[in-house]
Amino acid sequence: MSTLVANIGQLVTLDPAEPDRPIRAGAALVIDGGQVAWVGDAAAAPAADRRIDAEGAAVIPGFVDSHSHLVFGGDRVDEFEARMAGRAYTAGGIRTTVAATRAASDDALRTRLAHLAAQARAQGTTTLEIKSGYGLTVHDEERALQLARELTPETTFLGAHVVPAEFVDDRAAYVDLVCGAMLAACAPHARFIDVFIDRGAFTVDEARRILTAGADAGLLPRVHAAQLEPDGGTALAVELGAASVDHGTFLTDGDVELLAASARAEAAGGPLATVATLLPLVEFATRQPYPDARRLLDAGAAVALASDGNPGSNFSTSMPLAVALAVRELGMTPLEALAAATRGGARALRRGDVGHLGVGARGDAIILDAPDHRYLAYRPGVPLVRQVLVGGEPTS
Amino acid sequence: MSTLVANIGQLVTLDPAEPDRPIRAGAALVIDGGQVAWVGDAAAAPAADRRIDAEGAAVIPGFVDSHSHLVFGGDRVDEFEARMAGRAYTAGGIRTTVAATRAASDDALRTRLAHLAAQARAQGTTTLEIKSGYGLTVHDEERALQLARELTPETTFLGAHVVPAEFVDDRAAYVDLVCGAMLAACAPHARFIDVFIDRGAFTVDEARRILTAGADAGLLPRVHAAQLEPDGGTALAVELGAASVDHGTFLTDGDVELLAASARAEAAGGPLATVATLLPLVEFATRQPYPDARRLLDAGAAVALASDGNPGSNFSTSMPLAVALAVRELGMTPLEALAAATRGGARALRRGDVGHLGVGARGDAIILDAPDHRYLAYRPGVPLVRQVLVGGEPTS
Ligand SMILES: [Zn+2]
Ligand SMILES: [Zn+2]
Repeated sequence: MSTLVANIGQLVTLDPAEPDRPIRAGAALVIDGGQVAWVGDAAAAPAADRRIDAEGAAVIPGFVDSHSHLVFGGDRVDEFEARMAGRAYTAGGIRTTVAATRAASDDALRTRLAHLAAQARAQGTTTLEIKSGYGLTVHDEERALQLARELTPETTFLGAHVVPAEFVDDRAAYVDLVCGAMLAACAPHARFIDVFIDRGAFTVDEARRILTAGADAGLLPRVHAAQLEPDGGTALAVELGAASVDHGTFLTDGDVELLAASARAEAAGGPLATVATLLPLVEFATRQPYPDARRLLDAGAAVALASDGNPGSNFSTSMPLAVALAVRELGMTPLEALAAATRGGARALRRGDVGHLGVGARGDAIILDAPDHRYLAYRPGVPLVRQVLVGGEPTS
Repeated sequence: MSTLVANIGQLVTLDPAEPDRPIRAGAALVIDGGQVAWVGDAAAAPAADRRIDAEGAAVIPGFVDSHSHLVFGGDRVDEFEARMAGRAYTAGGIRTTVAATRAASDDALRTRLAHLAAQARAQGTTTLEIKSGYGLTVHDEERALQLARELTPETTFLGAHVVPAEFVDDRAAYVDLVCGAMLAACAPHARFIDVFIDRGAFTVDEARRILTAGADAGLLPRVHAAQLEPDGGTALAVELGAASVDHGTFLTDGDVELLAASARAEAAGGPLATVATLLPLVEFATRQPYPDARRLLDAGAAVALASDGNPGSNFSTSMPLAVALAVRELGMTPLEALAAATRGGARALRRGDVGHLGVGARGDAIILDAPDHRYLAYRPGVPLVRQVLVGGEPTS
């Protein structure tokens, strides 16, 4: 089944093969066999089995949300309300969600996860990474990854999310568990391994041990780092060739230069870059300072935007709002923000086949309810995702 | 046709007759003849012709957006992008939209307006105020109000939006026109009269003249004031018994006390209060400081939230995002923000029959895709409006 998307007001391809022409006017798009088969002037479009009329709207690549934590039980809306009111809330935190997740049935977790993924899809997320990290036992981490794997190949083992309550007096034993039996059980269901480097979670040295063990088990490293203060997480990520370092609110000049050097090395034909993945919905939800995307972009680093959807520090999965915040708060242009939410996310997942609409890419596209991609920032909060195509197939 | 809304996880009535019980658990709702006919414990619900299953979700009153400017031609996305980048953009401003609006056909304006109103409806706006103000001739202002009146009874004559280019050298003549032939043509199509009090628009003295003329023609006054600096607009609004003073970012202590006194007078059985209508989507879109809702609430003033949807200073019509911003930025609790976006908006429009779900109110309700109304702030940017009922009828 081939599909012609016609009457496109503005086609944003972000085709890496055409870096000087990210946007086309008067263009059409043909998707065949799930992949982009043809892009060119509408007047020259080949015939196709089916025609979808974009009615003059902008068409953009589907969003690639490279960072989410959507396998969990319970919610933390009381903690959210207390935080917004400036009230202490001692019962909060990741461990609350760990307890609720362990107590939840497979079906309860699956139903919730499917609902959250469908909501994200309806807002244009066509590739979604999902992490474990609220189980923190061999069984519960494996279960979370199995559930995530039912929905996406982009699964990440995050046994090193936080030291669970039962190990607080022997964190070394927990690191041993993560690197041992837990990794062995989880590796078959995961593509990536991640560590939350933070004063309240894991040190850089612990992270090095865990990520190295993960790499030995065939997983690609990625890290949470520099969310609340500078740390050595970015240097570790680059050292290990991690796909991504996420948060990056408190990067040092040295961190930025390491990321930029990594991007330069990729451009020169070396190994793929470590991407700086920014998560502005977290800063929106926590009132922390926003990261500075402009600084990273100007230095030449690869930048992604992702949601970090999770029940604690941010429960929004809205990539459109992440784009709008990136324009308001992070110093990105609307096109840079869109590219970071699509191509950037794809690079952070080491995927060349999504995040753009060049020939050969997957036919994952969004028909906006807007004539111009900049409306995503110009009209924040308005549902502008009219239709989502996955492999060329309308999803609703 | 009577409709039972059953299986409600949390019913937010905001019934002014029950100020101590804004939220009910285990409740059901019956709408009959377009109005709320019964609210009570689900187990005691009467029979109805139709049953709508809320599936455990929260049900809230429809949003009352008491401030929008949605009759216009063109857009200002280039100006938006320049502003976000910190670049000067001399061609921008209201007059750009005036030129595009005058040049647009009735059908073009009608189609755009209907689309924008439908988008707002899909996000839960069941009562929508629409202003003129981009015509600024007798014909074009009358035309804007006629088009707005096709969609809503809540229309506002805003001939005093800005002095049009052709009158810059004789602003007194423009004020005469607004108070004379323009008012005469527009009054039959409007319920309110509004003036933009601002250094770049109209003075307090000009506003007094225009609003007094409007009141003499049977229109209810409201004003834009204190958006960018303190001004006498709030005092004028209270003096004239205006329904609302909108923006209120730079209110003086005296302004706040006047608004609070006006609310106290209403509570004591006096005239209806002048409502402080806050428009945080504007501050989001312009990076101006946000108004302080906490100060107004603590003083006892009546507070509304509205969108101010317009092509220049904010093109979002998202009441859910306005609620989320009010919680993050304005010092409101989630329930205060929701009340301001519903009951508050209704008070700002002098409507007792909308903005709540007490018996006798219109059956305008939102079934959320969430178990708790606080998710509107907890999950910003996620479309959480699952179903919108207008007079008890599902709208999609
Ligand atoms: Zn995370
Ligand atoms: Zn306005």
